[in-house]
Amino acid sequence: MTTKFNPKIWPSTTTENSGVISVGGCSLTSIAREFGTPAFVLDEADFKLRAQQWKSALDKNFGANAGTAYYAAKAFISKEIAHWVEQSGLGLDVCTGGELAVAKAAKFPADRMELHGNNKSETEIADAIDYRVGTIVIDSLQEIERVAKIAHNKGVVQKVLLRLTPGVDAHTHEAISTAHEDVKFGFSIASGAAWDAVLSTSKHESLSLQGFHAHIGSQIFVANAFETSAGRLIEMLAKYKTQFGSELPELDLGGGYGIAYVDTDNPNDPNSILENLSATVTAECHKHNLAVPKISIEPGRAIVGPAMITLYEVGTTKEVVLEDGSKRWYVSVDGGMSDNLRTALYDAVYSINLVNRTSSAQLIRARVVGKHCETGDIVIHDVRLPSDIVPGDLLATPATGAYGRSMANNYNHMVRPPVISVLNQTARTIIRRESYADLLALEVDEPPRKISE
Amino acid sequence: MTTKFNPKIWPSTTTENSGVISVGGCSLTSIAREFGTPAFVLDEADFKLRAQQWKSALDKNFGANAGTAYYAAKAFISKEIAHWVEQSGLGLDVCTGGELAVAKAAKFPADRMELHGNNKSETEIADAIDYRVGTIVIDSLQEIERVAKIAHNKGVVQKVLLRLTPGVDAHTHEAISTAHEDVKFGFSIASGAAWDAVLSTSKHESLSLQGFHAHIGSQIFVANAFETSAGRLIEMLAKYKTQFGSELPELDLGGGYGIAYVDTDNPNDPNSILENLSATVTAECHKHNLAVPKISIEPGRAIVGPAMITLYEVGTTKEVVLEDGSKRWYVSVDGGMSDNLRTALYDAVYSINLVNRTSSAQLIRARVVGKHCETGDIVIHDVRLPSDIVPGDLLATPATGAYGRSMANNYNHMVRPPVISVLNQTARTIIRRESYADLLALEVDEPPRKISE
Repeated sequence: MTTKFNPKIWPSTTTENSGVISVGGCSLTSIAREFGTPAFVLDEADFKLRAQQWKSALDKNFGANAGTAYYAAKAFISKEIAHWVEQSGLGLDVCTGGELAVAKAAKFPADRMELHGNNKSETEIADAIDYRVGTIVIDSLQEIERVAKIAHNKGVVQKVLLRLTPGVDAHTHEAISTAHEDVKFGFSIASGAAWDAVLSTSKHESLSLQGFHAHIGSQIFVANAFETSAGRLIEMLAKYKTQFGSELPELDLGGGYGIAYVDTDNPNDPNSILENLSATVTAECHKHNLAVPKISIEPGRAIVGPAMITLYEVGTTKEVVLEDGSKRWYVSVDGGMSDNLRTALYDAVYSINLVNRTSSAQLIRARVVGKHCETGDIVIHDVRLPSDIVPGDLLATPATGAYGRSMANNYNHMVRPPVISVLNQTARTIIRRESYADLLALEVDEPPRKISE
Repeated sequence: MTTKFNPKIWPSTTTENSGVISVGGCSLTSIAREFGTPAFVLDEADFKLRAQQWKSALDKNFGANAGTAYYAAKAFISKEIAHWVEQSGLGLDVCTGGELAVAKAAKFPADRMELHGNNKSETEIADAIDYRVGTIVIDSLQEIERVAKIAHNKGVVQKVLLRLTPGVDAHTHEAISTAHEDVKFGFSIASGAAWDAVLSTSKHESLSLQGFHAHIGSQIFVANAFETSAGRLIEMLAKYKTQFGSELPELDLGGGYGIAYVDTDNPNDPNSILENLSATVTAECHKHNLAVPKISIEPGRAIVGPAMITLYEVGTTKEVVLEDGSKRWYVSVDGGMSDNLRTALYDAVYSINLVNRTSSAQLIRARVVGKHCETGDIVIHDVRLPSDIVPGDLLATPATGAYGRSMANNYNHMVRPPVISVLNQTARTIIRRESYADLLALEVDEPPRKISE
């Protein structure tokens, strides 16, 4: 008998026993009974394994020039996750005061942190400097002045990188190298904005320019995209050396490494990605007569994405006759677009499995939908599921760890699901399920204040 | 001097004084100073005015046959909103236990409520029946059994409507009448599912079938869409009379009435929409020799949408050179896709204005973006803004009342903005701004539990 789940997509500790799927040694039927549904189930061992794979691959391929593997908090963060990241030897990339607040609450080592963002407030910058965040990645000319002023006032020399837009479109079958990028982030190399930013930064004694950063996108499978970007940043390092007579010590090549959501996705492993990147960086630096700088990366989705699944209970099923006479079977679960926004937001495609029992029933054309009052509330547009699925059955969507709980909302006043961490046949809640009382707690009964016109 | 805001899009109490915009007699500069940004600003008088317009238009055009104008909670709900809805004489349409919990907390009159949803849990159904919710709108065969059983066990005869799919595509320039609809909601008339549902419902003594419901979509401008749908439901009423020898007393024609987001949107007023609908309903009922039933409607967006705006502060600006040599000016605000998901989710188009001062500067091509770590975090894709906008200026997006705060999330650990209600030169918080502590409060430190495999 073949396993019914694809191990490329499911967490690495996933097993099957008589049709019941377990993660971290915990059967999903038990998880549903103990913690309720919907629920995110996070494989602690898998998370740490993937984190360590990226860290090891960076160390192995860049040796003494390995910088920091920053975990990108935006994919999913909590204090517990921050502890795991720290224990695994990675750094942490935060991009708002809220993400910084989690890091502070977890006492994450500040020197292994960087602060991102295209519109950091003065408060966020001041908080980051007060916490002694290792690196601030600067995104605009106004921000150069802003960070410089705040650092100066605090008597701090702040290490900074400049975020550059290298003109690499990585969202097609091959990376297209364009002159420009129509995005809010960074300084364009092609337009000269990047060099202006270097000159502007160098005028401030409170800023210590360490090098450049680029992030070329998300969920990238294109082989040469990261290399093309690295090459352009290294040209900027060479220009810096020519003009300033010294070399910048660091390059942060960002993240965006794709993961598998469905059978046809074939992501490369961390080692082969960084092996290729190392070869390019070494060759380009050699070409420009530069020492290889410290190389940092920012995997987020590639660590937490495959480590987490979403567990649902089926509520209703319905056969709908389509215009061409064919039939579609609608299967409704107890969550939806409030816990997985990516299907509606990006037309993202996921897998789903029956996880509480075997079924030898015929597979039929199905659509898995949520319980929101919205037609677009679809979990999986088109999937083949056993025709004997009934209310009470459990379904699970793998690879929901990144941008699942982190983008969840309370649309229709649905409460957000808990995150249950599983490890070695034990389970514990690390983020609890919201309650209606939580939602109502934001409502206040305040007397009106007189306001000037 | 012409006003710089389009009164068709802004709340009805909006005024301008030397470039400073006020809503409810409160200047947005004062609101920003007193309550901070980003913030939702809700015009209480405008909300109540629009609610009453729908209620009056229903009463005027249907006379003794006017049913209930249900406010659709999914657009935006809180206890305070529920009070306003009640005071305005409307009913309330809820579609989850969470929305029901708000109604209960506000002590909303149960007989003026209906419960919707394609996948109501047993708990939600039981809670609704316990609260004596007037109408449950049933969506699937399984739900007929579920509601019947729960009502029976509680010794209640529950009034129900059946949600039907009439086969009307209202999202084009004219309503297309198709045989089928590929949606999760309701019972298809064309396939026979609707009639099966009637037969199934009629077998249960704990269910009292009142009639039919249809909801053909959202943000609809198409003139004849509602009439086409009503005609098909009335055919079903006629079939019922033929088969059962009695007439069903109610028809709920749903919502979906479009509002203006930009200058080119031209929604009809409630009276003309319901005048047309009344003519169709009367003619169709006459044709089928039926008494006109009670007619209910469900406006949501059309009431709260135009009554609320989002107030932002500018953080950074940046000129980006595009591939064709032209320039785009990126203006970053202190919110983004976490408080207005509709731009990213539906390619929705909004307006935006400088609201804190006059500007005689040239208007230039701009894109307003948020502060999230995501390229798609765009508030307005393409808009002309004064070229002298600088950090600290205030911008406001009107018509964000529906599906704005209700779909807001904490992506990047951004806290959700408050809702500030304004009226007659006074302002008060009805939903407070979240804090980082609120977000961290969901994290728990629980000992692991042993779970069976």
